[in-house]
Amino acid sequence: MIYSERLAEIKIEPLNEVMRESIQDKLNNKTKPLGSLGQIEQIALRIGMIQNTLTPTLSKPQVFVFAGDHGVCEEGVSAFPQAVTQQMVANFLAGGAAISVLARQHSMSLGIVDAGINGDVADLPGLQNRKINHGSRNFVKELAITSGDVVLALEAGADVINAASHEGGKVVLLGEMGIGNTTSAAALTHFVTGAPLAQCVGAGTGLDAAGIAHKLAVIEKGLAQHKAFLDGAEKDAVRLLSAFGGYEIAMMTGAYLQAASHKMVVLVDGFIASAALAVATLINPLVLDYCLFSHGSAEHGHGALLKYFKRTPILQLGMRLGEGSGSAMAYPLLVSAVNILNEMASFDEAGVSASDR
Amino acid sequence: MIYSERLAEIKIEPLNEVMRESIQDKLNNKTKPLGSLGQIEQIALRIGMIQNTLTPTLSKPQVFVFAGDHGVCEEGVSAFPQAVTQQMVANFLAGGAAISVLARQHSMSLGIVDAGINGDVADLPGLQNRKINHGSRNFVKELAITSGDVVLALEAGADVINAASHEGGKVVLLGEMGIGNTTSAAALTHFVTGAPLAQCVGAGTGLDAAGIAHKLAVIEKGLAQHKAFLDGAEKDAVRLLSAFGGYEIAMMTGAYLQAASHKMVVLVDGFIASAALAVATLINPLVLDYCLFSHGSAEHGHGALLKYFKRTPILQLGMRLGEGSGSAMAYPLLVSAVNILNEMASFDEAGVSASDR
Repeated sequence: MIYSERLAEIKIEPLNEVMRESIQDKLNNKTKPLGSLGQIEQIALRIGMIQNTLTPTLSKPQVFVFAGDHGVCEEGVSAFPQAVTQQMVANFLAGGAAISVLARQHSMSLGIVDAGINGDVADLPGLQNRKINHGSRNFVKELAITSGDVVLALEAGADVINAASHEGGKVVLLGEMGIGNTTSAAALTHFVTGAPLAQCVGAGTGLDAAGIAHKLAVIEKGLAQHKAFLDGAEKDAVRLLSAFGGYEIAMMTGAYLQAASHKMVVLVDGFIASAALAVATLINPLVLDYCLFSHGSAEHGHGALLKYFKRTPILQLGMRLGEGSGSAMAYPLLVSAVNILNEMASFDEAGVSASDR
Repeated sequence: MIYSERLAEIKIEPLNEVMRESIQDKLNNKTKPLGSLGQIEQIALRIGMIQNTLTPTLSKPQVFVFAGDHGVCEEGVSAFPQAVTQQMVANFLAGGAAISVLARQHSMSLGIVDAGINGDVADLPGLQNRKINHGSRNFVKELAITSGDVVLALEAGADVINAASHEGGKVVLLGEMGIGNTTSAAALTHFVTGAPLAQCVGAGTGLDAAGIAHKLAVIEKGLAQHKAFLDGAEKDAVRLLSAFGGYEIAMMTGAYLQAASHKMVVLVDGFIASAALAVATLINPLVLDYCLFSHGSAEHGHGALLKYFKRTPILQLGMRLGEGSGSAMAYPLLVSAVNILNEMASFDEAGVSASDR
């Protein structure tokens, strides 16, 4: 599946399995009971393998929040009005949102990307303008995004990461903002994972049971609308994104692929970020090797995605905010894992007796 | 139950329930879907209530690792030789242990306290000498610690915290090191929680199934040995610590009580640290109000303790190292919670529209 020359050039190398054993040996000789740092050791192992070294570093962590609007909002699928997307983007840039606070705490640069906001926001200082359209179309009535625009969005996401890598970034956190985007993500999750739609649809920003039932019915209409378009192409990333959107999700999909090709450590956030990654696996499943899953979201559909990825998230805090906030919260545990691998003494170095048995 | 004039002076105030509502209101008005930061919001709520303010601060985080040896080691209950206690203490001080690495990462001061190491370690630079004895006695044959020495240990733990509070510390992390101490902690857990002994005994530093069965049999002998001593006094903290030890556990028990009396935020580590806290609840159950539970340990008995406390830990990473390492790893999430409460914009401040419903 080649969608564009630009995208076809994104190659992802599998991890070096030889390095796994060397890192595991190094961890096993640290002054602690064998395996006693649990999942932290698995994080150290993956980061070492991604960087193909026994002494990895996490320089220049960068968060990117991709923002886009969704035409399907006119069906009443969200607890918040669509204007909130651009209001929150202003909030990100002003430093008042959760991800702003968390990025400051961890000294991360925070890039806010206009992927397809429905509004004129070009005057917001600091906003990266990658806008492809003023929001996607209502997928109940028509394709959310044209195939050509999907490819442009994938390429734009890849471009954002190229710039980040050029600045020396070795770890990237991808977040999103887009009123209505759990609706698109639910449809995508259903197609990629094969889970029944009801398992993919949740409360989003705060729907009650009736709201969730309505959202499910809206997506079912969308499924019927695009049945012919997707017939035999249920695993075609571009068609899926074209059918259901949105621009921010497509940009994240491209960003994941490019980040993996640069051997960056990628922290995956919650439901929507995971849905974008799921679509990326349709283009190249090796992308998963470069990902760490920051948290298990309280948004209903995230379970189906984690099951599809066969991975355990780092945090389980019942969060469902998006913006990359779960990834930012998990980040210090990556630093801990790397520091333990690099700085902790071995039994020999510390003169500590090994186990009797 | 008054064990000493010194201990009787440790009063703990209940949290101010009026503040709960004010903090919850503040959280509810932040620019995010209601409740969408999950457990992070609960952490912010508790810290605000502990400090009785809408704008809490976490100044001067301090880790204390209490180290002590256990006479019951002569029964072959650990996968590591007893000498490892003092070898690891040297490792802590040299900066090579997991807790050394983590304290550096989070700019925490790290205090290592000799509570009862079986060895002459007074020459180790930086070690706080609170040694009461060269290890506890073998509780299968006799009382692990005399009642008088238990009181001295409780007081010494309280003294360590008084000094920390005097230096302006508002948050404290208590860890431990002591080969054999999961054996003592299992016996204490059994008595405080009422859980069957088999639910309290685990692999410790790495026993196999046969080793665990032997450890269980050893503790059962200890239970028989002290049946008369504990008859009618199964909830007496001093008698329990006297029967089973150890010095580092008793010091932590005293430290928890004193920290709560100073309204410090207390981060509770894994199995042994939780067992010491469980004993502290027998003296004053209000101590729990000041505690946050950092992680669910992979050590088998921790589940019984968390059930007794009726609390959910922050991290679930399958760790079982001790030293306060789980608490150090959870600490940045406390900082996130506090920063979100203090720095995040409200809907009004950011000009973001509220929910439609």
